[in-house]
Amino acid sequence: MTNIKDLAKMAGVSVTTVSRVLNNHPYVSEEKKNAVLEAIKVSNYFKNINAVHLSKGKTQLMGVVLPFSDHPYFAQLLKGIAKQALENNYKLVLIQTDYMERRELEALQMLKQKQIDSLIICSRTCDLSTIEEHLQFGSIVLCENIKGKKASSTFVNQYKVFFDALEYLYHKGHKKIGYCIGRKSGANSHNRELAYREFHEKYSLPYHPEYIIDKCLYFEDGDKVINQINKLDKPPSALLVTSDQVAAGIVICCQKQHISIPDEMAIIGFDNEPIAKMMNITTIEIPLLEMGKNLFLQAVNGDITNKELSVKLIERGTV
Amino acid sequence: MTNIKDLAKMAGVSVTTVSRVLNNHPYVSEEKKNAVLEAIKVSNYFKNINAVHLSKGKTQLMGVVLPFSDHPYFAQLLKGIAKQALENNYKLVLIQTDYMERRELEALQMLKQKQIDSLIICSRTCDLSTIEEHLQFGSIVLCENIKGKKASSTFVNQYKVFFDALEYLYHKGHKKIGYCIGRKSGANSHNRELAYREFHEKYSLPYHPEYIIDKCLYFEDGDKVINQINKLDKPPSALLVTSDQVAAGIVICCQKQHISIPDEMAIIGFDNEPIAKMMNITTIEIPLLEMGKNLFLQAVNGDITNKELSVKLIERGTV
Repeated sequence: MTNIKDLAKMAGVSVTTVSRVLNNHPYVSEEKKNAVLEAIKVSNYFKNINAVHLSKGKTQLMGVVLPFSDHPYFAQLLKGIAKQALENNYKLVLIQTDYMERRELEALQMLKQKQIDSLIICSRTCDLSTIEEHLQFGSIVLCENIKGKKASSTFVNQYKVFFDALEYLYHKGHKKIGYCIGRKSGANSHNRELAYREFHEKYSLPYHPEYIIDKCLYFEDGDKVINQINKLDKPPSALLVTSDQVAAGIVICCQKQHISIPDEMAIIGFDNEPIAKMMNITTIEIPLLEMGKNLFLQAVNGDITNKELSVKLIERGTV
Repeated sequence: MTNIKDLAKMAGVSVTTVSRVLNNHPYVSEEKKNAVLEAIKVSNYFKNINAVHLSKGKTQLMGVVLPFSDHPYFAQLLKGIAKQALENNYKLVLIQTDYMERRELEALQMLKQKQIDSLIICSRTCDLSTIEEHLQFGSIVLCENIKGKKASSTFVNQYKVFFDALEYLYHKGHKKIGYCIGRKSGANSHNRELAYREFHEKYSLPYHPEYIIDKCLYFEDGDKVINQINKLDKPPSALLVTSDQVAAGIVICCQKQHISIPDEMAIIGFDNEPIAKMMNITTIEIPLLEMGKNLFLQAVNGDITNKELSVKLIERGTV
């Protein structure tokens, strides 16, 4: 590949002159400028952007850590981030983790090595302390309540959202309420479980660990949920389902098995995806596009802020 | 930021010695090596990966151009690519285009500037000739039949798939068949339209341009399709729907409007997504994960190959 020295030689000028031409510096004679431009044309020279990044210390690349890119929740979040990235002339580097810690560590390593300018972690497995150790290398933004820590975040108060939804079902007459989540570990799931326990204490209801069904991520998991519930002696009469996709799968499965909704089984979904509207599913709207936008801006901005977004219960036909 | 000269000064050795230590060169005395390692520790020095990329001419970054990351078709394709990227120690740079040409050109520019090593274009708006001009800067792989061109590709023969599906419906007694696609432009849509026209010629059937419904991408577009069909004097009795999501939306809408499937409306979806299985939708299975894997390997490999993947009709309850 032609380098700046080759160009200088071809044009019969100094390396400094070539550099000035490449960077549109004003003090270059027309004659020398043309000689350099001709050399660029002949040699098909183009800047290696890595050299630019090296000298500027910036890449205009932002890393996005997410467990699955094909899950509607993360796809929507990514869409919100991508829209802002585009408007701000950033490209996104996708780090799909399948919740494997070493892949998260690779993302942090990219930040350390300046391959990316900043990092958005949509969901994590690694310790918060590991993340904090990397804050010296660039901004890192998270999707969970980490107020008081040194990183930024945009989040929904999962404890409050869960507690409110449980109370809503309780006031609709439900005493046996179960819930479906993606995974049992993770900060959000911890807060949800806490809300679930404290709700049962507040209303002196018996606590059924078998009412908590995990590994529910996709539409097709709806079948699994109903099959699991069918095996219980005392099945729940209502379900909080942390994904509209799964909620829709449950609704379809109930239809097939002639389980009447909401009489025999009430369902609240999460996110207010289009499928929830179309299938008339009561759901909790999470502003995922706004969340993505905010995460991006926090990552670029670099100030440490923690922003809580509010949610909205959309009442439809499944409760 | 500490650089290699600072390290040399701190350790009291030459720049060459520091470079040797950083690159694990064997001919460095234990004493000097320890001095350098101590300086690295004290200064918190780390390699700027952009310097490494500049010297190696490789970034281990692969660009992926796709119109929408939140559409299940592209999400599955991306999943297939991401799995291979992980196994081969590549990171993906996502270039979401919304089918805007300038964003595709930006991706090609990234290849030219060596910000990425190679590029997968999942769906495009720009000319093939523009892409071919950029092949000198790195490998570019496409998702369409471009045999005889200078780029690699992995694709499904959309003409044949469409023609076969139309004949299948014809032999099931359908003479009025419509189809739903994402967009009317684009190489795949062109081939589908050709198959549709030639199918009508072969069986001397009247051609209804109003049976072609475009901008069908998401579940919620099912409503639009049925509303549009309800306005026709002679509605089609069968639909080829190039996305299972949309097909599922159509099925739900038909249920709501008491349109009997398959008696009043037969439906063939595309992709064989889990939603098609769950809703018992007849569909054409496109091996998207395999396609993604192949695209990745072609991009890394760099040889020019064109691979056609075969599809499979999955007969279920909607025809």
